[in-house]
Amino acid sequence: MHIKDFLTEQWMNDYERKAVVNLTDTSSVSLSVNDLLAFEPSFLDGLMLDYGWITGDPVLRREILSLYADKREETLTMTGGALQGNQMVMDLLLEYGDHVITITPGYQQFSDYPRAKGCLVSEVPLEESDWSLDLEKIKAAIRPETKLVIFANPSNPTGTWLDPACMEKLVEVCKVHDIWLLVDEVYRSYEDDEISVADQYDKGIASASLSKPFGLAGLRLGWLKGNPEIIHRVNVLRDYTIISGGPLGEGAAAVALKHRHEILERTKAVVDSNCAIIQAWLEKSECFSCVLPKKGTVSFMQIPDCLSSKQFCQDLLEETGIFFVPGACFDKEGYVRLGLGKKHEDLSGALESLETYTRRYLKEGRGRRQAQS
Amino acid sequence: MHIKDFLTEQWMNDYERKAVVNLTDTSSVSLSVNDLLAFEPSFLDGLMLDYGWITGDPVLRREILSLYADKREETLTMTGGALQGNQMVMDLLLEYGDHVITITPGYQQFSDYPRAKGCLVSEVPLEESDWSLDLEKIKAAIRPETKLVIFANPSNPTGTWLDPACMEKLVEVCKVHDIWLLVDEVYRSYEDDEISVADQYDKGIASASLSKPFGLAGLRLGWLKGNPEIIHRVNVLRDYTIISGGPLGEGAAAVALKHRHEILERTKAVVDSNCAIIQAWLEKSECFSCVLPKKGTVSFMQIPDCLSSKQFCQDLLEETGIFFVPGACFDKEGYVRLGLGKKHEDLSGALESLETYTRRYLKEGRGRRQAQS
Repeated sequence: MHIKDFLTEQWMNDYERKAVVNLTDTSSVSLSVNDLLAFEPSFLDGLMLDYGWITGDPVLRREILSLYADKREETLTMTGGALQGNQMVMDLLLEYGDHVITITPGYQQFSDYPRAKGCLVSEVPLEESDWSLDLEKIKAAIRPETKLVIFANPSNPTGTWLDPACMEKLVEVCKVHDIWLLVDEVYRSYEDDEISVADQYDKGIASASLSKPFGLAGLRLGWLKGNPEIIHRVNVLRDYTIISGGPLGEGAAAVALKHRHEILERTKAVVDSNCAIIQAWLEKSECFSCVLPKKGTVSFMQIPDCLSSKQFCQDLLEETGIFFVPGACFDKEGYVRLGLGKKHEDLSGALESLETYTRRYLKEGRGRRQAQS
Repeated sequence: MHIKDFLTEQWMNDYERKAVVNLTDTSSVSLSVNDLLAFEPSFLDGLMLDYGWITGDPVLRREILSLYADKREETLTMTGGALQGNQMVMDLLLEYGDHVITITPGYQQFSDYPRAKGCLVSEVPLEESDWSLDLEKIKAAIRPETKLVIFANPSNPTGTWLDPACMEKLVEVCKVHDIWLLVDEVYRSYEDDEISVADQYDKGIASASLSKPFGLAGLRLGWLKGNPEIIHRVNVLRDYTIISGGPLGEGAAAVALKHRHEILERTKAVVDSNCAIIQAWLEKSECFSCVLPKKGTVSFMQIPDCLSSKQFCQDLLEETGIFFVPGACFDKEGYVRLGLGKKHEDLSGALESLETYTRRYLKEGRGRRQAQS
């Protein structure tokens, strides 16, 4: 298998630990072990570190099933993060020569993992004005050999959210052409107006985890929810690849899910507060604009078009400590990824510094894109 | 991808939780969170559950590198268990039509995962007298399209251990034919007479974890050690499939590795005591015989040849609570897998019950194999 470098992850690996103010992280405020112990002081007591339950601790499974309308046990299995769930579904469904549709800008796993498996991938561009999806463009991309439509909802980096009505229309399209629909719901915040694709379509599969609005990426734990035939096949593949999720991560996850209302409300409060500060700043900014999303913890902010997003982000980090992932990592110049879920000591101050720095940077003619020169 | 059911895992899933006396488990005595806290009382305090270090916590990495002669950072990366490491190496190295060599009886991942990828697999039988490997049979299996030799050392289920001199000969064979050598060292106990393939061959890759002699399967954490080019490619693939190991599992693993002498000595004491009891019992047994291995926590015990191993194991579990994985799950009738690493309240008593039950079972003519009738 030959697979391209994963640009965003590589950028994070290379630079993240140099950040003083990380404005690009997709997760919300991370919880600590102590936070979980505050919810349930004894959840670690006597916990044996054996393989545990192979397809998931029953208490954890019950909590997860309560997030969906379809509560059948055979519609759920555990994975090591949502992205591993995506991998397993793609490994099982996709053969050399199959056609896959995804959206762009999007998460690179959805395009370059199927490509590495010898699939042809169509990337349907979101509307740049507001990052909405034009369903007609999905329809136009469908071919006889289209096997799978895959994207995240809400999406990374644009924050695009397909509401249940829009998803219903997409499901109808997939149904007509008998196409599987794998939706990474890792940014779902489980509010009442959100519905999982697993509850909308019998060939729908949702992947999810506790990494984003739950702030528990460190558990490296996710799940797949949907079509029982695929879930069964995933369980067979799991025996070859992960065996189980382990009692430590699963025990912590069960605590978090039992207390999800508190955790998710905390996240919402942080995101709302950040968005208010960002919105007020954007209204005065001469350099930046951004469509703040209805859902999720991430957005894609426009920067001056003349700039090389990579050069700008490198210089900015070096000189101010402010950290972004550049649009170039999503194959889209003119943007940086702006995270919405982290608590900052002084977000207003950081944004002011960003504006001041960028105005001077432009004035000095620095960081120009090659194509613009 | 179409992949066969993983017979051992499925058997464990179906029956393990009904066991009263589990005589088949491959892990040693499981540690609890409290055991780790006893080593380092504050290792969980304030631990943030974010993604953590992408290619492994530096403290953990230092502990792991100390297990090998080659201590270069670029020879190591973290995986979710050894089997996920094996998967990643096979995903990267193997293309449709490649030829793979493994040993039998062995771990089903090594034969049926490459088959699911469209590879041709030769299974070289171990010598039934003592489960040793005849290297000439490996040589005879090599073809021009042979890409990989893969097995576990010590091996599951037979306990076969290729000592450094024998491994050296195998490495010479692989070198001549430019074949990769992936050795699952999950049963390695890090005694002075053990050497990793990663320190013997530049196209050698070792996978390992804390699941077996460390008794920490619940961490779901392993690593790959070896050829830097492959490790780099694994790191790229990791960005698409796991991102990181997570601070919780890695923090616990670092504690365990710092205190490995104590943990491994405890395991050795249990295995030695179990083996002494088993050996004394075998000498008097009319129904069973077994070559107890020099290394590892698992062996393959001969049962009366007339029996269907599955039927016998099912009846035995149902009627006595004693649990084995049958040889049929390793495609080898006439055996059951006997674990050596667990502490039992009364192992002598359980073995006596096993003998008594089996004598009566045979006398009653139960559980005969179809082919024998």
